[in-house]
Amino acid sequence: MLEHALEYARANRAAHLDALCDWVRIPSVSALPEHAADVHRAGEWAVDRLRELGLHRAEMVDTAGHPIVYAEWMGAQAPTLLIYGHFDVQPVDPIDEWKRPPFEPRLEGDSLYGRGTSDDKGQAFAVLAALESYLKSSGRLPVNVKVLLEGEEEITSPHLPPFLRDHTVQLSADAILIADQDMLDPQHPVVMYGVRGNLYVEIEVRGPASDLHSGTFGGAVDNPFNVLVRLLASLQDGSSRRVLIPGFYDAVQPLSAAERALLAQAPITDEVGLYLTGAPALGGEEGFLLAERISVRPTLEVHGIVGGFTGTGQKTVIPAKAVAKVSMRLVPDQEPFAIAALLEAHLRRVAPPTVNWELRVMGTARPALIDFGAPAVQAAAQAYERGFGHPPVYLRGGGSLPIVRDMIDSLSPAGGEIPVVMIGFGLPDDRTHAPNEKFHLPNFYRGIQTVIHYLDILASRPRIGPKIPPTTPT
Amino acid sequence: MLEHALEYARANRAAHLDALCDWVRIPSVSALPEHAADVHRAGEWAVDRLRELGLHRAEMVDTAGHPIVYAEWMGAQAPTLLIYGHFDVQPVDPIDEWKRPPFEPRLEGDSLYGRGTSDDKGQAFAVLAALESYLKSSGRLPVNVKVLLEGEEEITSPHLPPFLRDHTVQLSADAILIADQDMLDPQHPVVMYGVRGNLYVEIEVRGPASDLHSGTFGGAVDNPFNVLVRLLASLQDGSSRRVLIPGFYDAVQPLSAAERALLAQAPITDEVGLYLTGAPALGGEEGFLLAERISVRPTLEVHGIVGGFTGTGQKTVIPAKAVAKVSMRLVPDQEPFAIAALLEAHLRRVAPPTVNWELRVMGTARPALIDFGAPAVQAAAQAYERGFGHPPVYLRGGGSLPIVRDMIDSLSPAGGEIPVVMIGFGLPDDRTHAPNEKFHLPNFYRGIQTVIHYLDILASRPRIGPKIPPTTPT
Repeated sequence: MLEHALEYARANRAAHLDALCDWVRIPSVSALPEHAADVHRAGEWAVDRLRELGLHRAEMVDTAGHPIVYAEWMGAQAPTLLIYGHFDVQPVDPIDEWKRPPFEPRLEGDSLYGRGTSDDKGQAFAVLAALESYLKSSGRLPVNVKVLLEGEEEITSPHLPPFLRDHTVQLSADAILIADQDMLDPQHPVVMYGVRGNLYVEIEVRGPASDLHSGTFGGAVDNPFNVLVRLLASLQDGSSRRVLIPGFYDAVQPLSAAERALLAQAPITDEVGLYLTGAPALGGEEGFLLAERISVRPTLEVHGIVGGFTGTGQKTVIPAKAVAKVSMRLVPDQEPFAIAALLEAHLRRVAPPTVNWELRVMGTARPALIDFGAPAVQAAAQAYERGFGHPPVYLRGGGSLPIVRDMIDSLSPAGGEIPVVMIGFGLPDDRTHAPNEKFHLPNFYRGIQTVIHYLDILASRPRIGPKIPPTTPT
Repeated sequence: MLEHALEYARANRAAHLDALCDWVRIPSVSALPEHAADVHRAGEWAVDRLRELGLHRAEMVDTAGHPIVYAEWMGAQAPTLLIYGHFDVQPVDPIDEWKRPPFEPRLEGDSLYGRGTSDDKGQAFAVLAALESYLKSSGRLPVNVKVLLEGEEEITSPHLPPFLRDHTVQLSADAILIADQDMLDPQHPVVMYGVRGNLYVEIEVRGPASDLHSGTFGGAVDNPFNVLVRLLASLQDGSSRRVLIPGFYDAVQPLSAAERALLAQAPITDEVGLYLTGAPALGGEEGFLLAERISVRPTLEVHGIVGGFTGTGQKTVIPAKAVAKVSMRLVPDQEPFAIAALLEAHLRRVAPPTVNWELRVMGTARPALIDFGAPAVQAAAQAYERGFGHPPVYLRGGGSLPIVRDMIDSLSPAGGEIPVVMIGFGLPDDRTHAPNEKFHLPNFYRGIQTVIHYLDILASRPRIGPKIPPTTPT
């Protein structure tokens, strides 16, 4: 069954590429209201495809936003895998920087160019193509499969958490597979066993009732910009780069020796970091490796400050207000709203009485951590070795995928945590979210093979789900 | 002659207001290249007006930047007064906060609203209207007058100093009159016997080669925004509000007991400060009165920070660079470039090696101090009493008029300093440099009367210029 599936996948590369191009042609930009019908069409396309592949109950579920797609195949005496992916894509601006129209996929060398080719249509399609390879060559899958595709991932999945909570039985599974991430490079696939959370805030400082001339009033009042930069500077130590909000690190899980050793093996050297960032020197928190700083440690970043004069030339204004956009990447077990409360308490202590200020929470995402020893995760490592010829690198992701924690919260069995297996076939230079997004086609085909192997390995394991502690008799 | 001029001014208020509105309608924003032709037009308007008034040699002189306007009337056996003003205006952003378009002047109650109504078209026009009142009613002026109007005051007059140096004979005079300032309130006109200097800089911090995603790279590099806010915070003590640049205060002249007593009489109470600024509490340097903080003490203000993400919503970007706009008001004898050197040395000590940085001097203005006992200055006090019915308050100005020092340097006779007489008819709530600028029309008309009286008083004094120490026989 495995060999037939692999052979089918090899024989149908051109057909798979063609079908992916059809999906990419649908401009399913979830952030823009004028593309709502396109997001719907991209979902319909997936429903038709899943039905044609031989999955059952293929349907589109409407939400208050963009729709969700569901399908399943439950004919195996084997564990059940819930597959998650998304069919919406990022906006295309700046459109002028695209060499070709973003929704007219084209081949150039080894790469397919177009919006969504990598994030996530190409990677989600690779998983569907693996299912197809089994179903079309053997009429069945080695494990039970439930497929859940959404149309709002790029706008932080506002309608997925309630859908998960309302369909816990329908979606129940032994493990969850997500293919929506990058490899380190074509030799190094990644098993991602965690994601950072995020707290995005605005800090507004208001002083005089209106903008003042710094000649007339300079020395009379505290300038909101001067106060705001002092408040922002008070959030991070300039030398250790530790966040100085009292209590910020209290909930951070200490890094185990085992995990520290695992991360030390990751081929993420300072040379690689300098090459990828182009910075004069690396920065970040003292006392941690680069691989740790970008994954298991929290951060604080100032993204911009709104207000005052930012045009060319000189304007000697004391602005009436200034608003900083700040975000913090969070790690287990930092909870965004608890961190926001700590930040607010800190600002209350340090802000001078010469200004009014306000803290606004603009967005939150909770961090998640998956047991990398779970059989469903280890099976992914084995599958990578067979699909790519290389063992994967284990890393926690530095970015935020809020649905990971939402899925764990909604779909874990009592007393355990469902393993979320995060793999992916993108490359760091795929320019996801940027102009001229591409997908490296050798990774596409190896990705299909990897998922074919993954399903085969899963089927051979009697128990892939969470370790549930034995119930103590009462 | 005096009475005829005063009567003419009274009879022609409506015509003067109409003409001022015509001048205000020209959007002569000197800071913005797209308004260069408008600045030129505003200068042409002034040349036409001066010629029509009966002044001679009315001409526009081109510079490498915006033009200079000159005219004169030299028919009196009396001292010569050089009148200075400017026809350029500040930018209008934030444009959304204007209740009406800034270049469509409109009357509301006692005020004329529009950019430049107060600073300085309205005040310069009041002086021209005083000349007109003599010339149209008596065909002559009581003193000789030279008029010098420029189009670059709001961008720190880059081309005026060389013009002064090249035209010392043409511009030679016994005193200089500038009407470009505020009164304390409608009851308290001000004789301004000094101006603060200014140093306007940009501090640019560059980190990664391009904008980075804070999920992928957060923790790997120092965010230029985080570094910049720390650098800015290091410039001023958050508690005493003293500037922390080493050496910053070294050249500051100590305040004499006489001047401290003079300033303590000024009716500039904290209550007035709170009322005028609308701030929750006053700020500024510890240990000094409000009247001192806004005039004889230096300051440091952050005006804005360019770069990063300032749109609505969230973008988790680590910006490649951030640029702060910062200015310092300076007092005698702080020299702008010496202060810039101190700032650069400070940044060199505190900036981390994880970023590149650059300090750019965008503008400088030297401070100036005038002998408030000079006859030409005392004449202004007398004129105010006649025009406004109140004696003036003596103050040093908190703003910067670099040309004051430039004029003193270029136009003073050997061994003396030409008195620069600074008066004005604006009010502190005129919102010069801010949205909804206005001019209080009763002050406009009283201002015209005051200048009419000033020319009359000057004509009666045999000697109005600087005290020149007697030459010691060699």
